[in-house]
Amino acid sequence: MAGPAYRRIAAVALVGAALLAPVARGEAADAPGKAAEADWRAIPDDELLVMTLAGGHRVVIRLAPSFAPEHVANVRALALAHWWDGESVYRVQDNWVAQWGDATEKKPLPPAVKMLPAAEYDFAPLASAQRLSRTDAYSRESGVTADGWSLAGDGTRSWLPHCYGTVGVARDDAPDTGTGAELFMPLGGSARRLDRAYTIIGRVIEGAGYLAGLPRSAAPMGVYASVAERMPILQVRLASDMAAEERPHYQYRRADNERFAAMIAGREHPAPPRPALGGVDICDVPLEVRPAP
Amino acid sequence: MAGPAYRRIAAVALVGAALLAPVARGEAADAPGKAAEADWRAIPDDELLVMTLAGGHRVVIRLAPSFAPEHVANVRALALAHWWDGESVYRVQDNWVAQWGDATEKKPLPPAVKMLPAAEYDFAPLASAQRLSRTDAYSRESGVTADGWSLAGDGTRSWLPHCYGTVGVARDDAPDTGTGAELFMPLGGSARRLDRAYTIIGRVIEGAGYLAGLPRSAAPMGVYASVAERMPILQVRLASDMAAEERPHYQYRRADNERFAAMIAGREHPAPPRPALGGVDICDVPLEVRPAP
Repeated sequence: MAGPAYRRIAAVALVGAALLAPVARGEAADAPGKAAEADWRAIPDDELLVMTLAGGHRVVIRLAPSFAPEHVANVRALALAHWWDGESVYRVQDNWVAQWGDATEKKPLPPAVKMLPAAEYDFAPLASAQRLSRTDAYSRESGVTADGWSLAGDGTRSWLPHCYGTVGVARDDAPDTGTGAELFMPLGGSARRLDRAYTIIGRVIEGAGYLAGLPRSAAPMGVYASVAERMPILQVRLASDMAAEERPHYQYRRADNERFAAMIAGREHPAPPRPALGGVDICDVPLEVRPAP
Repeated sequence: MAGPAYRRIAAVALVGAALLAPVARGEAADAPGKAAEADWRAIPDDELLVMTLAGGHRVVIRLAPSFAPEHVANVRALALAHWWDGESVYRVQDNWVAQWGDATEKKPLPPAVKMLPAAEYDFAPLASAQRLSRTDAYSRESGVTADGWSLAGDGTRSWLPHCYGTVGVARDDAPDTGTGAELFMPLGGSARRLDRAYTIIGRVIEGAGYLAGLPRSAAPMGVYASVAERMPILQVRLASDMAAEERPHYQYRRADNERFAAMIAGREHPAPPRPALGGVDICDVPLEVRPAP
């Protein structure tokens, strides 16, 4: 059985190696799509939100103040007030979202939080540094901005697409009823229908897999039926509000260069014998980050 | 704070209620997209593969013998030989796949297993019962067959797309080197680039969330670094090989009717104020199943 056994060993490697895990891992891309040292830029400390869950599991979110200034201002105010400390991840619905904040929905918000921020998901027409060759059912064009955010568009406006790991603002029916206190992360394969309906305040750059790996709830909408099921949040801090020795430092990969273009081209046109129609989904373009060296 | 608190309560409901979790739940669709009683048909007992994991967690797979006859024949032979009993889910890579079988890759296969089945992912041009209005980066057309399988196509051929919950055959570089002994399920948002490269033998219709909720491994390719991390498989059986009183019975929803068309149309054109470009992704069209009444 040596032959077949060997083939099966390789098979395991192949699924992972030839078809690299994207997005959340800051994977090393193959040259010529590999980043140059100059492509890495620091993410400012006040654009890193650090959530520590029970057991010490850390989730780090890169905030998007240039896209959602009002909601990010709220998120910063909530973090500075330590508002999330002692709250929980209280909802994990399979193939949909993990959601966190105050499960009772009754905790008063700090005075600095704006109660009715405007919806922040209609931006100027797509002017991304990179543009994808093919589109999808939820947009007419898509691409990646110079500073490393995915954008989708319809020709007259653009918006941040709901990919795995993006962080959105839960809200009521009206677009301006979410403050940022209740947040969610898509964890499955079907969140794009939330596009242009929910404000996105950033994306998880560390620990998305921990949120995505929490036990699913079978209760309605995936809200844990008991307090015991909830995953406690120990604290949520802006990195700029943390002691220097505890503060994480991250860099993102700039997209306004030929190396990023080559990386996209490599995904759109993989080496034979892999088939392709010349396209890659905007949610399958890795937005690389790395801890600062 | 009554007003804002009320809004936040509703917000939680809204994310789930207005934006229902798809695919894995057999959700009740709104009329006129709701199934009629006549739309439900039994899934044959020999097309249900029942995997029982440690703790009694059950994963049920609907097999696709009409699409992958050789690989499904192997899977049936492996189940009849109880080959998977005592093996494990040994790989859970975030935003990628859960994979199971023999982690050592050295266990001899039963004589009934064909060692080099042909690749089974190039089918006749798309002739689905329902066709979607818009396409995606990985296909030029897509739809749902009368008997409830999603298909993608490029005009000259069609294939089963790698959506959340589909079950694929891990293999070596050559397309005919996977037997079906090692299987994987996409659990994130980015598996379509596996299309037309891996044979799909079915889809998980119960328990996908349990597989998707297993702890991620940080080791290379998400292969658990220690035996203790693996999730033991107690047994895998064809339903037709189980005692009558233990046997699950499932029905699938036929797609060759106006109700299914209305359901798709409702997803492509959600009620205002929800924005849409008239499209839905093939992986976000629910393929409903239900336990037989």
